[in-house]
Amino acid sequence: SVNPDLASERQTPSFSVEKLTAWLDGGVEHTRIRRAVVEAIDRDPVFSRENQYFQSQNERYEAAVRKRVHLQKKMHEMGWTENGPEFKDIYRALSGDIAFLLHRIFMRSISMLGSDKQIAKWIPLASQYQLIGSYAQTELGHGTYLQGLETTAVFDIATQEFILNTPKISAMKWWPGDMGRSATHTIVFAQLYVHGKCYGIHPFIVQIRSLQDHSLCPGITAGDIGPKMNFEHIDNGYLMLQNVRIPRENMLNKFCEVQPDGTYVRRGSQKINYFTMTTVRISLMSDEVITPLMKACTIAIRYSVVRRQSKLEPGEQEAKILDYQTQQEKLLPQLAAAYAFHSINNYLEELFDKGYREIQRRNFDTLPELHAFSSGFKAMITQYCTSAVEICLRACGGHGYSSLSGLPSLYTKILASCIYEGENTILLLQTARFLIKCFMAASTGQSVPPSVTYLAAVKPGKCPAKNKLDFLRPDIYTEAYQHMAVRLVSSTAAKLQNLIQSGVKKHEAWNQCTVQLAQAAKAHCHYITVKNFAETVERLETKAGIQKIMKHLCDLFALHGIISNAGDFLHDGYISGAQMDMVTASYLDLLPVVRKNAVPLVDAFDFTDKTLNSALGSYDGQVYQRLYEWAQKSPTNKQMSPAYERYLKPLLHNTLSKL
Amino acid sequence: SVNPDLASERQTPSFSVEKLTAWLDGGVEHTRIRRAVVEAIDRDPVFSRENQYFQSQNERYEAAVRKRVHLQKKMHEMGWTENGPEFKDIYRALSGDIAFLLHRIFMRSISMLGSDKQIAKWIPLASQYQLIGSYAQTELGHGTYLQGLETTAVFDIATQEFILNTPKISAMKWWPGDMGRSATHTIVFAQLYVHGKCYGIHPFIVQIRSLQDHSLCPGITAGDIGPKMNFEHIDNGYLMLQNVRIPRENMLNKFCEVQPDGTYVRRGSQKINYFTMTTVRISLMSDEVITPLMKACTIAIRYSVVRRQSKLEPGEQEAKILDYQTQQEKLLPQLAAAYAFHSINNYLEELFDKGYREIQRRNFDTLPELHAFSSGFKAMITQYCTSAVEICLRACGGHGYSSLSGLPSLYTKILASCIYEGENTILLLQTARFLIKCFMAASTGQSVPPSVTYLAAVKPGKCPAKNKLDFLRPDIYTEAYQHMAVRLVSSTAAKLQNLIQSGVKKHEAWNQCTVQLAQAAKAHCHYITVKNFAETVERLETKAGIQKIMKHLCDLFALHGIISNAGDFLHDGYISGAQMDMVTASYLDLLPVVRKNAVPLVDAFDFTDKTLNSALGSYDGQVYQRLYEWAQKSPTNKQMSPAYERYLKPLLHNTLSKL
Repeated sequence: SVNPDLASERQTPSFSVEKLTAWLDGGVEHTRIRRAVVEAIDRDPVFSRENQYFQSQNERYEAAVRKRVHLQKKMHEMGWTENGPEFKDIYRALSGDIAFLLHRIFMRSISMLGSDKQIAKWIPLASQYQLIGSYAQTELGHGTYLQGLETTAVFDIATQEFILNTPKISAMKWWPGDMGRSATHTIVFAQLYVHGKCYGIHPFIVQIRSLQDHSLCPGITAGDIGPKMNFEHIDNGYLMLQNVRIPRENMLNKFCEVQPDGTYVRRGSQKINYFTMTTVRISLMSDEVITPLMKACTIAIRYSVVRRQSKLEPGEQEAKILDYQTQQEKLLPQLAAAYAFHSINNYLEELFDKGYREIQRRNFDTLPELHAFSSGFKAMITQYCTSAVEICLRACGGHGYSSLSGLPSLYTKILASCIYEGENTILLLQTARFLIKCFMAASTGQSVPPSVTYLAAVKPGKCPAKNKLDFLRPDIYTEAYQHMAVRLVSSTAAKLQNLIQSGVKKHEAWNQCTVQLAQAAKAHCHYITVKNFAETVERLETKAGIQKIMKHLCDLFALHGIISNAGDFLHDGYISGAQMDMVTASYLDLLPVVRKNAVPLVDAFDFTDKTLNSALGSYDGQVYQRLYEWAQKSPTNKQMSPAYERYLKPLLHNTLSKL
Repeated sequence: SVNPDLASERQTPSFSVEKLTAWLDGGVEHTRIRRAVVEAIDRDPVFSRENQYFQSQNERYEAAVRKRVHLQKKMHEMGWTENGPEFKDIYRALSGDIAFLLHRIFMRSISMLGSDKQIAKWIPLASQYQLIGSYAQTELGHGTYLQGLETTAVFDIATQEFILNTPKISAMKWWPGDMGRSATHTIVFAQLYVHGKCYGIHPFIVQIRSLQDHSLCPGITAGDIGPKMNFEHIDNGYLMLQNVRIPRENMLNKFCEVQPDGTYVRRGSQKINYFTMTTVRISLMSDEVITPLMKACTIAIRYSVVRRQSKLEPGEQEAKILDYQTQQEKLLPQLAAAYAFHSINNYLEELFDKGYREIQRRNFDTLPELHAFSSGFKAMITQYCTSAVEICLRACGGHGYSSLSGLPSLYTKILASCIYEGENTILLLQTARFLIKCFMAASTGQSVPPSVTYLAAVKPGKCPAKNKLDFLRPDIYTEAYQHMAVRLVSSTAAKLQNLIQSGVKKHEAWNQCTVQLAQAAKAHCHYITVKNFAETVERLETKAGIQKIMKHLCDLFALHGIISNAGDFLHDGYISGAQMDMVTASYLDLLPVVRKNAVPLVDAFDFTDKTLNSALGSYDGQVYQRLYEWAQKSPTNKQMSPAYERYLKPLLHNTLSKL
């Protein structure tokens, strides 16, 4: 039975939860498909995550491999395919808790960077799991700065082979997923040398383990990098290469090739090598970043209407903690952010699908803008969502800190998204470089990509809001964000120019501006996110109930951002102190409004209890009962610890001196 | 051999590292004692934490018990005592990784709340470990709000016993350390009933396990609450009581007593029951919060001069990442904060020692101020340091995310400090209540405690700084913090009064102000921290080299706080936009200055490699070599996973269909 404190929250939603779910899914039909997938997976005991919080790294790895292998069978049974509409749903239903995730990146790299011949050879093998692929880019001493990679691939014209080597310890491949214990093949990124000349980083297909007995191939040293903050189920690995020879045909050569005589031929921008990474950044946003935030919100908000603490008025029952303004202020902006990022992510995915098609046609024009988008938004969204999940965890007090709440693993996993696929600060600076370039171009009247035309429209002016209600107008707050972003970009551009004109070397000047540049890039992404959310809400006009609540969330997201970055808006007086008080008033007024619909808003995410895997977040709100039941299953309760006989008993029986 | 990139950082410190260490320790003599303790512990293989990152919860618990028992022997051998000067050093050297930490709290509670007779009976037993004590306050459904606890203790006049019960599941004791598997006794906080009348929460000594065979006592259900985000070594437990009878003498009765005839006698403020918690909050600050931040800074800063990435100038070698402004901006303010909090903590410890002596003399006058101090600073410092450790972790990129860096466990452990011993938001609001009260009193001319007299001195005015150098004057920035704190307190007090005057009920009005009240309390603590740091630096005059670098850190801490909370300073124009640019300029100028001494500043914390237990942070900077060596010891590399024969081999050999 549902805890009455949770049930009462579902009595009178101001909108149709079912319709909101369908909107989030992109249509009723998709909701139907997703639910069928989730049901099939939830019912299958092999996919159970019931004991996950009690398992060791070895156990988690084994379970992940078992699930992956079982999934192949299941997909066959159910008629699901890798490219079918169900694929995303499968991953979501499994919470990504399966092995061989890099296999897909391996295949995508070959599809994108390989010739037709290479695709014809490798893709069928990979699709049928006759090999297991990985993607070996990062090295022990080298991460986001790819040009610094030290692994070498020297062309041997005599044998028509490349000879791969790890020249020193810092060049060891380190971190690639599925490589520590599973992969038979990997794509190694290495500096290509032909006739002693270095041609930069190129991708090579290298076999690392025997297909017969899984032993390491000659010249290969590989293993697992050990425990991490999360991802116990993935065998992130290390790899050393000593004179490993691979045939000339194993260099992925759609865009560049070494011909038999050693002639190097390029057929496109070298940047294309990075495009896999660029698209990966966007493709991971939904599953690895936004979905976890949605889960954290679901857990924290459901718990916050079940948990009671202290009294709002003397003599009354203890209050639900979500009735406290401070709790609302912690959780509801994170809920709004989940919807805001869901919306911008849809926009980015469309943009990248279009971009991908262009690039397949060898039109590279949109690459700089796509790169700026993927870098900046990856950094901004991962950082925001990581903080948001942490806020959800902390907002659940002690029980949030228990692994059984599900929040610790959500947090430790999402945190990695700030680091992998490009360190966030470096990514922000790449976006900043694009913004400064576009700002300079725009200010001399040159044309710039559509996403940054606003930079040309620098107007001083003041915010026209006269009362707190004006701050519920999307035009007012979107304009404020735009003004702030332009100010940060233009003032940093000015600082940069002043430094250079005063004789500081270009690179040193850039370094001296990077703190502000990163801030400007974030402001740009924040502005685009607010604008996009407001436009999305605008387009919802026919679905009245949903539009109204989404409008509240959009307002809340926007005003929360203004308050959190108040200094940036107050700095040049665009928003005055008195107006900031109006923002605060409107913001605080919104909290109880959104709070009324908080549970329906997380119900709409439509996570099953098995997907959430949380003692605090279940649909029925039986929090305390579940914590108690789950705790009893812990291996720490399975038997009396040997510590008693060995240490405790002698201590208590005062035989300490004889120990 | 020391990595040359790290060695070069130690060439020309602007101060004596050894002298700074002595200052941090509180004198040369203490440094000597501490180093002797650390050496004895580091050398003893029983205390090794070498394989800690690979251990399960059961293994960690067993190791923690083993270490605790061994420690008793060691203390005896070395002549160390619980109350001796070495105790703090022992705990630090062990990184708190031992069992029975609650035993000390058990003893402290008895010493503080027990009668002389009770002390005479229990303290010797506890000191000699003839019992193991715990402290059972928190319940499954009740945390910081002690009045809400549901466990009952009913006085049975016939037998002269208290009958303890857990009336429902939410009343189960949950979280107490050492209770899940170890403790034989615990202090249970329960609602006292005599003749049907409830007298509120009181502490009772209850035996829960047999001293003979460690089996649970009649009426007791207890166990371990399962996995948590950290603290694998501690058996946080649950406890249910069913008609458990204890003698009348087991209620701790220094301040209140139930006499044989059922008469209830009180001999002091009821608040005294909370004073244990108040002192615990302060006493944990150094070991659990500030030391971990110092460790995180040591690891991240040493790594940041060894790690090289990208180029600052084309053609050059890749740069040390600490030479990037963005990396300096991440790490150096955290380093400054570690010193700032070390300084305020010394101040708080002195204050509490004095307070404790007063209370022993039954003078309760300073209780409200001490309570406000302990609440606010506990919340502010734990929150700040937790974020700071997270910044250090993220600043180390992928390798920071590896457990072997030591940063994940520092982070997951310090995070708990935001939750235990009082949830931070609630604590901030308790401080805010004190501030509002004092502000009201001060504005009607009444006298207020010394720490808040500044609230009476509300002056409008503007910041007098004329150029960026003015912001390196402690009087200028301390004044700015003071102004800001007063403004936040006074404006929230005004809002509160307005609401009440407009007819909103008092409790509802309070709730509507809590977001701003919490912010005001934080501002107050931030101000006191800056002021205290500036005064500490002032007093350092004779030790010139140290004073100079501490002055830089104080400036950095203060200016970083202004920039991070820019909105609060700009709001009423006390600091103008132009002045904020000066703050930013001064702040950015300070980064390279502090950066030059960054390694000596963390070396001064004087952690041994064994204490740090980090592949990234060792004194010799051999980061990559150590990561590789440690990874090879991981259990994930000990043997081929059974997953190969079971799942992988059939998959690769295409026997999937036969599975």
